[in-house]
Amino acid sequence: MSDFLTWNDRTNMSMLTDFYELTMAKGYLDGGYEDQIVYFDAFFRNVPEGGGYAVMAGLEQVIDYLQNLTFNEEDLKFLKEQYKFDDRFIEYLRNFKFTCDVWAIPEGTVVFPGEPLVKVRGPIMQAQILETALLCTINHQSLIATKTARIVRAAEGRPVMEFGARRAQGFDASVLGARASYIAGVAGTSCTICGQHFDIPLSGTMAHSWVMLFENEFEAFKAYALSYPTKTLLLVDTYDVLKSGIPNAIRCAKEVLEPMGQRLLGIRIDSGDLTYMTQQARKMLDEAGLTDCKITVSNALDEYLIRDLISQGACIDSFGVGERLITSKAEPVFGGVYKISAIEDKDGNIIPKMKISENIGKVTNPCSKEIVRFYDNATGKAMADLIMVADEEIPNGEPYEIFDPVDTWKTKTLENYTARKLLVRIFNKGELVYKCPSITELRANCTKELDTLWDSVKRFENPHRYYVDLSQKLWDIKNDILHSYRKHK
Amino acid sequence: MSDFLTWNDRTNMSMLTDFYELTMAKGYLDGGYEDQIVYFDAFFRNVPEGGGYAVMAGLEQVIDYLQNLTFNEEDLKFLKEQYKFDDRFIEYLRNFKFTCDVWAIPEGTVVFPGEPLVKVRGPIMQAQILETALLCTINHQSLIATKTARIVRAAEGRPVMEFGARRAQGFDASVLGARASYIAGVAGTSCTICGQHFDIPLSGTMAHSWVMLFENEFEAFKAYALSYPTKTLLLVDTYDVLKSGIPNAIRCAKEVLEPMGQRLLGIRIDSGDLTYMTQQARKMLDEAGLTDCKITVSNALDEYLIRDLISQGACIDSFGVGERLITSKAEPVFGGVYKISAIEDKDGNIIPKMKISENIGKVTNPCSKEIVRFYDNATGKAMADLIMVADEEIPNGEPYEIFDPVDTWKTKTLENYTARKLLVRIFNKGELVYKCPSITELRANCTKELDTLWDSVKRFENPHRYYVDLSQKLWDIKNDILHSYRKHK
Repeated sequence: MSDFLTWNDRTNMSMLTDFYELTMAKGYLDGGYEDQIVYFDAFFRNVPEGGGYAVMAGLEQVIDYLQNLTFNEEDLKFLKEQYKFDDRFIEYLRNFKFTCDVWAIPEGTVVFPGEPLVKVRGPIMQAQILETALLCTINHQSLIATKTARIVRAAEGRPVMEFGARRAQGFDASVLGARASYIAGVAGTSCTICGQHFDIPLSGTMAHSWVMLFENEFEAFKAYALSYPTKTLLLVDTYDVLKSGIPNAIRCAKEVLEPMGQRLLGIRIDSGDLTYMTQQARKMLDEAGLTDCKITVSNALDEYLIRDLISQGACIDSFGVGERLITSKAEPVFGGVYKISAIEDKDGNIIPKMKISENIGKVTNPCSKEIVRFYDNATGKAMADLIMVADEEIPNGEPYEIFDPVDTWKTKTLENYTARKLLVRIFNKGELVYKCPSITELRANCTKELDTLWDSVKRFENPHRYYVDLSQKLWDIKNDILHSYRKHK
Repeated sequence: MSDFLTWNDRTNMSMLTDFYELTMAKGYLDGGYEDQIVYFDAFFRNVPEGGGYAVMAGLEQVIDYLQNLTFNEEDLKFLKEQYKFDDRFIEYLRNFKFTCDVWAIPEGTVVFPGEPLVKVRGPIMQAQILETALLCTINHQSLIATKTARIVRAAEGRPVMEFGARRAQGFDASVLGARASYIAGVAGTSCTICGQHFDIPLSGTMAHSWVMLFENEFEAFKAYALSYPTKTLLLVDTYDVLKSGIPNAIRCAKEVLEPMGQRLLGIRIDSGDLTYMTQQARKMLDEAGLTDCKITVSNALDEYLIRDLISQGACIDSFGVGERLITSKAEPVFGGVYKISAIEDKDGNIIPKMKISENIGKVTNPCSKEIVRFYDNATGKAMADLIMVADEEIPNGEPYEIFDPVDTWKTKTLENYTARKLLVRIFNKGELVYKCPSITELRANCTKELDTLWDSVKRFENPHRYYVDLSQKLWDIKNDILHSYRKHK
């Protein structure tokens, strides 16, 4: 049988790395580059689904991974015997100790294309090996957090529950996806292990199988009400919502719950025309005096369907959202990349590096960088972000002119602002110097962050493009490299 | 800090279950149903992307999960304190022992909508609790296997490598996704830990960061060639493929490798117009006498792009495929569901159950079932599948008439066939009675399985719909239930 259980021992996920990270690391060692200090940025190029912003998530799991980054004898044996890595490299891996500096944008923060979400400085072999796991984690959770923010926004204050575990792309995707979705605003999850380990409210009542086990629908409802008199929420679409489900739910409220002094908490509809069904259900429940009975719906919902249901006047109190959230179905890839941006020479001078590509979108920004966000003092809203060289001074409130990095004649002078640095120090020479906030704090941070964006940036279709500009100094360096490369050719 | 490491201890994934599985289980116990024997089927309703077939995968991980299905004291404490489950239910969970019968279709088998991929028989509380993890696993791996089969087919015999770890939806998705893709035909993966634990060939050479670290591209290539003289594969698109990358690769072959008696193994192009670039690259390499140098391409490829590249005459020897495979980007959900199909009364009589829904596609097939596949003796090709009641006799070679379960006047008489049962016994009263094949055997099984399908079923667009019919007996039972329900209303 497989050693499935073994590979999931998360005290050693160091081998979750693309094989080329290891072949390169060995090559760096062969070439005498083991002490070469480099800078890498993890950033993304496009917001999924043409959205106006993304939500950063996954940092806590990146930290967990980095804190446990070592290679054990089993790993070394595999690499040596199966892939013939030489003794010197094996010995390097045996003594591997993470000593990089890491900066990152905290989870729950709204972020934009081109911004370094994580910045790594350290010896190239280390900085290279961590690429795959770092990207995998940030890409996944930021994807789900970004999607969730859209869905929660569509629900206009109605609670949204995450119900996607069974359709997630594996156990991690279900658990950590639920975590990311909670940061970005869902009210709870159905994923028990996620509730258990990440302190997230759990929710769940019954499946169709419950209703089908019993002699008839009423008996099924009655049995549930007897087990959960204070939280009876009945699934009413196993047979026929309006002719059977709702009447039986009302009967259960009257004949089972009310004699116990309890009220029917709610019903759930999981199929059919949800607008019509919920309107009829509401009417029937109200006429029976069950005006406090909540109506929950599910069935392949996303932000567009939720918006449509609300605009059509559906009578819905809360939403259960599954596959379209937990896989970000409409666009299931958050295309974060990890690119070298600078190296240090022997005297500690930082030499900028950039990738020049046939695909213009793949040209990177050089230098060790900082990101500054400008907030309008009058409204508290975010006005623009500025990507700067890390050693530049942060604008201090004086009028500051920004310009579009492509159409450079488009300028804007910022006044009456507060400037805030986005990157926070996480590791100092391999030592963790950051305390991960609680999930409640992360969720509150995300709510606050989303409030700083104008509605126009949060539109689902054709959102206003938020300004993310380069400082004059960074722009000049980038252009010098591009021009000198062209000349050199 | 979180207990990320703890929740990933896969000796206890029992809490990876939707919360409603537990609320229902407790309700079953309250209602005196703990010994109620039920049948559940896991099946899917539609092939992703409108395809003609799917590939079953994930069974080995389901088995791992079921073999370790127990609740520990930490779990019980959480459920009792946080969610106030009563002592009787907590005691039930404490003594939980898996005793179900399980049948499944082996991994690598081609499967079709409506067919039970996994069939579970056992006490309802057990059969219910396992739903979420079972579906999550089968849905994920079958999704990736199905997508992979399409991509590998498009490559027309050229090797396809799985490169998606960084874009996968979490660590599981990267590792088990790579596993599923290997079963369905990729030649190897970049995911080191997957190669290590699942015995899959690894592949990987260099990233753009390698090239950018060095003074210039030639120095980068030279350093790599010195480290890996027998397997030098160079990434040639960091600056300019035709003006810099290929000329430097050729120079590396001539000045570095040939003096060592080595040949340049290959080049990789990761951006730009891959048809034009590979044609030019081939020409330049051939003119330099490097006719044996392989050309590999990557960059957001899938079956459609690969088909286009080949039809346009691109000169490509192998493909690296990332995000579009590892997330099944075009359709990232394999909508497998798990539905009750029958219960047993106290005398062991099987009473069929089915879900009747407003959405016609959500109506299920009742009964404990078997699936039979008919192969044409002349060609060896699969002709049709028949879903039967489990106690029916398997057709033995006599002419057998099948009919469309919707348009019942559409009939076909099968002759000169061999009939094969698809479901295999996995657990007998909780005891594992199945030996998981090696990954090599699973991959060989998948190749053989795909060969039994006519090309028309494997078309990417508008494939021929493979016949999956119900036996007369099953069809009659289903119709009786539907009619008696309508009458009853």
